Amino acid sequence: MRRYPTRGVYDRKAIEAILDEGLVCHVGFVHDGAPVVIPTLYARVGDRVYLHGSAASRMLRTLSGGCEICLTVTLVDGLVLARSAFHHSANYRSVAVFGRAYPVSESDAKLVALEAFSEHLVPGRWTDVRPPNERELKATMVLALALDESSAKIRTGPPVDDEADYNSDTWAGIIPLCLRASEALADERVQPDLAVPAYVANYERGAAEQ
Amino acid sequence: MRRYPTRGVYDRKAIEAILDEGLVCHVGFVHDGAPVVIPTLYARVGDRVYLHGSAASRMLRTLSGGCEICLTVTLVDGLVLARSAFHHSANYRSVAVFGRAYPVSESDAKLVALEAFSEHLVPGRWTDVRPPNERELKATMVLALALDESSAKIRTGPPVDDEADYNSDTWAGIIPLCLRASEALADERVQPDLAVPAYVANYERGAAEQ
Repeated sequence: MRRYPTRGVYDRKAIEAILDEGLVCHVGFVHDGAPVVIPTLYARVGDRVYLHGSAASRMLRTLSGGCEICLTVTLVDGLVLARSAFHHSANYRSVAVFGRAYPVSESDAKLVALEAFSEHLVPGRWTDVRPPNERELKATMVLALALDESSAKIRTGPPVDDEADYNSDTWAGIIPLCLRASEALADERVQPDLAVPAYVANYERGAAEQ
Repeated sequence: MRRYPTRGVYDRKAIEAILDEGLVCHVGFVHDGAPVVIPTLYARVGDRVYLHGSAASRMLRTLSGGCEICLTVTLVDGLVLARSAFHHSANYRSVAVFGRAYPVSESDAKLVALEAFSEHLVPGRWTDVRPPNERELKATMVLALALDESSAKIRTGPPVDDEADYNSDTWAGIIPLCLRASEALADERVQPDLAVPAYVANYERGAAEQ
């Protein structure tokens, strides 16, 4: 996407908005000299991004050693159809955070992070579920990564064609894209007559301006 | 996501299906000893994935030197709501491809790759647009990465709770998610009375089984 018009956005508010809308980040780290990129859930609290997973996870154990990582979140907002093949592009918003992640080991701080995960993914869910017990907390590793070194890239707007191509009778414009929820599927063992919570039935993520 | 039940899928057909449904990949490489993860468009043709961009792009010039990369594509298919906070998860399909990318320099081979990009993003588009001219072909770098070293991870299915939690009156199940198109936005300078092509009006990506 980098050959197309983009603008760098270094404003913290824009970075936070992208992180808060995304669901999955891609974490890059170096293992035995080679790059590894793994998708994982995350949540932002203030000026930090949290990762979590099994304390036995190879990735988390590697990251918790304090190696350098790059955490990238990308929202695809639309496909940009130009009159020429060359000027096709995508509208997107992306954040990259560089740094080292450190373990959050204190139980109360871990709980704050786990609540943030839950509320980031499904706002309203946390108070409905059985909270983590001591065993589960111990089995869960939480890592924190500061946003100090982070940047955003955003492309919005219509295609930008060569002037000569604007006379073309080829349709041009944007196909807006958005991650949308469809009707929730109840687990087979849900108690009978249990209503679908409003935060599930009305679930949505943000939709971008083009 | 790695602490939850997943199954490794190494079947080439499953890998190809995930690559063909995704729009954006995350490319990881090592720059000055530190990992960098950048989102970019891609397309698969046979047993290769192609990347492209400006011949002046710093990322592409770095990659074209034959450094090791990890290219990861992730589709988020749903949020998995368990009765306990601990067993929440996501349904997803992800592919990681490891290897070195090499430049495609011959013009005809480049054109094949660029057509594949176009048809991967918007099937039906290629024959409607002005094809790349010599200058544009020269300004575009195309890289090919073999699928030889690739693997998939997939999580599907309902939440898996602790047996004791199934008596809970907490709703549990899946919120299915899918990247969906909304109504296309015509560019302001589109010729008057030009119809929206069917491949735009009916645009959709796949929807996953849960």
